[in-house]
Amino acid sequence: MITKNQIKFLKSLSQKKHRIENNKCLIEGKRIVGELIKSNQKIEQIIVTDKFIKKNPDFILFNSSHQYDIISNDDVKKIKNTENSQDIFALVATGGSVDSNLEGPVLILDNISDPGNLGSLLRTASWYNINNIFVTDNSVDIYNPKVVRSAMGAHFYLSNLHQIKNNEIISIFNKSDLDIIAATLDGAPHTEMSITNNWALILGNEAHGIDRTMLHIASQSVSIPRLGNMESLNVAIAGSILIDRFIGS
Amino acid sequence: MITKNQIKFLKSLSQKKHRIENNKCLIEGKRIVGELIKSNQKIEQIIVTDKFIKKNPDFILFNSSHQYDIISNDDVKKIKNTENSQDIFALVATGGSVDSNLEGPVLILDNISDPGNLGSLLRTASWYNINNIFVTDNSVDIYNPKVVRSAMGAHFYLSNLHQIKNNEIISIFNKSDLDIIAATLDGAPHTEMSITNNWALILGNEAHGIDRTMLHIASQSVSIPRLGNMESLNVAIAGSILIDRFIGS
Repeated sequence: MITKNQIKFLKSLSQKKHRIENNKCLIEGKRIVGELIKSNQKIEQIIVTDKFIKKNPDFILFNSSHQYDIISNDDVKKIKNTENSQDIFALVATGGSVDSNLEGPVLILDNISDPGNLGSLLRTASWYNINNIFVTDNSVDIYNPKVVRSAMGAHFYLSNLHQIKNNEIISIFNKSDLDIIAATLDGAPHTEMSITNNWALILGNEAHGIDRTMLHIASQSVSIPRLGNMESLNVAIAGSILIDRFIGS
Repeated sequence: MITKNQIKFLKSLSQKKHRIENNKCLIEGKRIVGELIKSNQKIEQIIVTDKFIKKNPDFILFNSSHQYDIISNDDVKKIKNTENSQDIFALVATGGSVDSNLEGPVLILDNISDPGNLGSLLRTASWYNINNIFVTDNSVDIYNPKVVRSAMGAHFYLSNLHQIKNNEIISIFNKSDLDIIAATLDGAPHTEMSITNNWALILGNEAHGIDRTMLHIASQSVSIPRLGNMESLNVAIAGSILIDRFIGS
């Protein structure tokens, strides 16, 4: 069984400062923990209820070499961050060193505030096999439970995902020879861009766009032309459309 | 001032059955009510607090011919559906007759369950000037407050937006000469599709895809090839990527 102190620790990880302090994050939900197990990322602890075991005898965990601990229903209520935790959790280490010897494609996410948007962008990036993702530290925490949920396991496949300071990102990319493209409201039409394979795409805040200092590292800007009356596209949608165009033929 | 009975009525519209029974919907938030006013859609009532008027003297409402009623802070708490209602509401009629004399582009949304996904798809559709949208009635209610919020005002621009029964949609499209394309996991790559301008795109449920009977009305199916490890793309993202490819050159 899990001790009271462990429960207290796991509960503390619902707060960003404790996640950062400990470089750890608690993942919950059957589908996402399943992706985690498949991804071969190192898992520090897997925790399930007795009910989960009875209900999911064929779950990937039980055909793997992973150990797991049992948690009581009462303790689940203390540590879960989503209404529907599905009685399964995994503790993973976060962080890791930045590989700044970069080749494209790269995604730079500047001040993304909505967890669903950030999660969706990570999910799309991983779908298109983009592994270099730099998120500014004024964006929502990449290990926020809502981000993790909407990313659907993408975190565990992204080999070079980092959330660092705006000016650290600028200094990394100032030195690179990547073709850096900013998504703005007044860029070149996305169907008419001529880009190399060695690109980095910057996406900005939902309401305010890309920060001015960040904008300076871009050599071109791109837009998706508006055909109807709406004021804007959702940033996760716009970013995904651009990724599709830049990656696809 | 607004009567107690009116407050009771407005509060009742937080429930789907009352929205459907009355063919009315309560919109909240400055940005969305602003879009509503710009859209020229008929508005039955606009409601603001005194605080809103003081804080937003330049808001589009106050330079328009629209009347408005004042609501107290206490009554706002009773009728609001979002944490941040921003002290402004509008009552609009929903429904309207189906224009089944269809030309493409058309979007058919089958059993979309997440409000954010449905709202994002409406927002993308309106950005690309797609006005014919058919949503199955087992999808989340198109006037659900979370759908309205994530659609960011798209509802008021979409001239032929309807939520009707699955078999009504099938019967409308069985008679049409549209090129009906289903988004599936095993369709032709989206960059290799050859389609006419007169297309309809079907998107299905987040977990289960398109219903089998609905799938029968499609003449082709399309997929976005996976390059990485993720199991799936978010449906609003996938749908938007396909719309962009089908509309754009």
